[in-house]
Amino acid sequence: MRSADRVIGRVTPAPEDTLDAVRLDDARRARRSFMGKALAIGAGASVGAARAASVVGAGDPAILTLPQHSTGLGQGVATSGYGLPSKFEKNLQRRESPGLTRVPQASVSFCPLQGLFGIITPNGLHFERHHQGWWDVDPTQHRLMINGLVREPRVFTMDELMRLPSVSRIHFIECGANSGIEWNNVALPSVQYTHGMLSCCEYTGVRLATLLELCGADTKAGQYILAEGADGSSMTRTIPMRNALDDVIVAWGMNGEMLRPENGYPLRLVVPGVQGVSWVKYLRRIEVGDRPYDTKDEEVHYVDLMPDGTHRQYTSIQECKSVITTPSGGQKLLDRGYYNVTGLAWSGRGKIARVDVSVDAGRNWRPARIDGPVLSKALTRFDIDWTWDGTPAILQSRAVDETGYVQPTINQLRAVRGSRSIYHNNAIQSWRVAESGEVFNVQTR
Amino acid sequence: MRSADRVIGRVTPAPEDTLDAVRLDDARRARRSFMGKALAIGAGASVGAARAASVVGAGDPAILTLPQHSTGLGQGVATSGYGLPSKFEKNLQRRESPGLTRVPQASVSFCPLQGLFGIITPNGLHFERHHQGWWDVDPTQHRLMINGLVREPRVFTMDELMRLPSVSRIHFIECGANSGIEWNNVALPSVQYTHGMLSCCEYTGVRLATLLELCGADTKAGQYILAEGADGSSMTRTIPMRNALDDVIVAWGMNGEMLRPENGYPLRLVVPGVQGVSWVKYLRRIEVGDRPYDTKDEEVHYVDLMPDGTHRQYTSIQECKSVITTPSGGQKLLDRGYYNVTGLAWSGRGKIARVDVSVDAGRNWRPARIDGPVLSKALTRFDIDWTWDGTPAILQSRAVDETGYVQPTINQLRAVRGSRSIYHNNAIQSWRVAESGEVFNVQTR
Repeated sequence: MRSADRVIGRVTPAPEDTLDAVRLDDARRARRSFMGKALAIGAGASVGAARAASVVGAGDPAILTLPQHSTGLGQGVATSGYGLPSKFEKNLQRRESPGLTRVPQASVSFCPLQGLFGIITPNGLHFERHHQGWWDVDPTQHRLMINGLVREPRVFTMDELMRLPSVSRIHFIECGANSGIEWNNVALPSVQYTHGMLSCCEYTGVRLATLLELCGADTKAGQYILAEGADGSSMTRTIPMRNALDDVIVAWGMNGEMLRPENGYPLRLVVPGVQGVSWVKYLRRIEVGDRPYDTKDEEVHYVDLMPDGTHRQYTSIQECKSVITTPSGGQKLLDRGYYNVTGLAWSGRGKIARVDVSVDAGRNWRPARIDGPVLSKALTRFDIDWTWDGTPAILQSRAVDETGYVQPTINQLRAVRGSRSIYHNNAIQSWRVAESGEVFNVQTR
Repeated sequence: MRSADRVIGRVTPAPEDTLDAVRLDDARRARRSFMGKALAIGAGASVGAARAASVVGAGDPAILTLPQHSTGLGQGVATSGYGLPSKFEKNLQRRESPGLTRVPQASVSFCPLQGLFGIITPNGLHFERHHQGWWDVDPTQHRLMINGLVREPRVFTMDELMRLPSVSRIHFIECGANSGIEWNNVALPSVQYTHGMLSCCEYTGVRLATLLELCGADTKAGQYILAEGADGSSMTRTIPMRNALDDVIVAWGMNGEMLRPENGYPLRLVVPGVQGVSWVKYLRRIEVGDRPYDTKDEEVHYVDLMPDGTHRQYTSIQECKSVITTPSGGQKLLDRGYYNVTGLAWSGRGKIARVDVSVDAGRNWRPARIDGPVLSKALTRFDIDWTWDGTPAILQSRAVDETGYVQPTINQLRAVRGSRSIYHNNAIQSWRVAESGEVFNVQTR
């Protein structure tokens, strides 16, 4: 038993996921005590609550009015070729952060982490990062060339690639700029915007090592590869040969079906543990070379500005990180009492070893439960029981990976790297719970 | 290296997934030898092949005509709140088998296993089985009652349930009638129809054990529970208390997001290892009782007719089973040479221990690779290398689970259970590859 009998509270969704403030207030006024009443009224349900009647046999006359789906009269909807979410879930969406990018075609949509469960990101909500919008590329026309330091350069059709032995792996993908705004200040209200350039899928494809062997790549002289996308943004990235021969996948599948167009259909590189920009979409070419390529997106972007004015380059591993998703910024605790605090942890260097949670801004830490599968370079779900006594609290999670690396505080990071970076912020996230129950994004210590 | 350099063949998709026969013939005529040519033309690509130009730098003048997405001119599509598959994937769909059910509201749509990868089923393609169509139930109006042999009967709102500690588990779901038509004859052409009432997701919810403890269930006298759905089909199922206290989940999530309406939104039971009909959708009530309930769907349906005219009841565990999905019925091998033969294995009693594959109707068996995660009561992907010499072959897979149970042949099953059953056919599936390369559903030995 996991303290469930102490449940007396609940969390409201982030503001953008609710209907409107008036209905929320209605719901609060109408609300009964949590347990023990047969028909406690949920948030957003005030208008129709008197007609609520999905349970048969209770004494309230209103109960006798069955909802249509329970009457046996009429028919439900027939089967369909491809299903979609309920109309009641229409507010759970990827969202852009207005003004974050200068032009709309170089845009981001953030994954609504506050509304997701487990470790798998559903394909419809996988975050997007485009450098020139997305394209629905015809797979029968798409090709992958492998050239450079190879004995036999080759061009593959999709059909040829998909005949090769494939692997399926569950991995996280995180944009190097995720949480980037937090370096300098606190600008973003919710976990969707602070951490939502993060997703986790089962990716399927052929190992890049297989293709390199097929083409007779010179893996001694050729210590690097260049990956090139087919869209007009000319996205090219250098990847060390040691990664290429290890776990890199030339992927066509995500969560069992073909990649979505916004995620690189029909072919993208999967570079486990490495920042998302290296997971080149619409992958059309792999070149084997003997040195890093210093492309525009490696010289000008995706570098880390250091306090002395120099910059770090090729720092592509996403270090160990975690974040509490419930409760999180923009949500509101409506009652004191029990909460199941839950979140995600991940590391670009392997498996998560443990996650600790603090409710007092890092003075005391308790180990969280890790209940589901713990996979290398994949999201890992953690949770912990917490009873809120109504006083202000600051919630934090701190992950440790299998190498022993401990997720740092933002000030530990700043001590080394200053506050002028955009990329590679893996600091501990702090959520302040106010006496009102409102949850805010804050920085502390 | 996994024999990839022997790749010289390919598999065409099942007929319903191709464009049309004329284009397929075009593609075959136009097709060049597999490797070594820079621009081998893929199936379905004949019309536009002369303009194929996703690779830069080759000598063919046609290459200089870039596709629009590679020109840098114009913009791609902007971000969206919720993504959908590529327009080029529109033929990969769940499909009904015409005439399988007598009335349209009691219908089935089959999962296209021949086109899926890995172990996760994307939510849009999760199979459907309705007894009265599907309903988009308002979650703010939905309730779950727990009554019967409990100290304190309770009614929960969705909001209350989702505040409780939750678990996320990857499990398969298989309809008890999956492969049912095969008992008596060979009627269905493709793996979508023979095995497509099968899916596998990460489900999230509260353990039923937690709810039963909250309500003070009498788990000594109460050796059974009844699960009841809210739709008009009055679906009710008995589940042994030992399952209820073990791994049964009252679930709201699938693959990270809320359940889809056709899969029971907002609440369904997840009964790992047990036939799908017990995973009651639109779950509204759990009753604790001291004996099986013998409901209509337990007396009349979902029973196994035995050779002596009696029937087996409450045989709900889905025993160890496997099937090759590529190549499979309705597909066609267009060349001799290398194929990566792949498929799925699963067991309602735990983990898959091994899978063997035969290409000669069961005379010789080779152990298949199991490369991805092996999870209890979840789909497990296997694959094996095979070089087709152009002579007829019969492909089979045979799974063994961690209890040591070996998947039987259809005739071994018939020796015990006759051929009048509908449910619980877990026999080895045989696919015959003809000299023409066409693949047929057959039964042998």
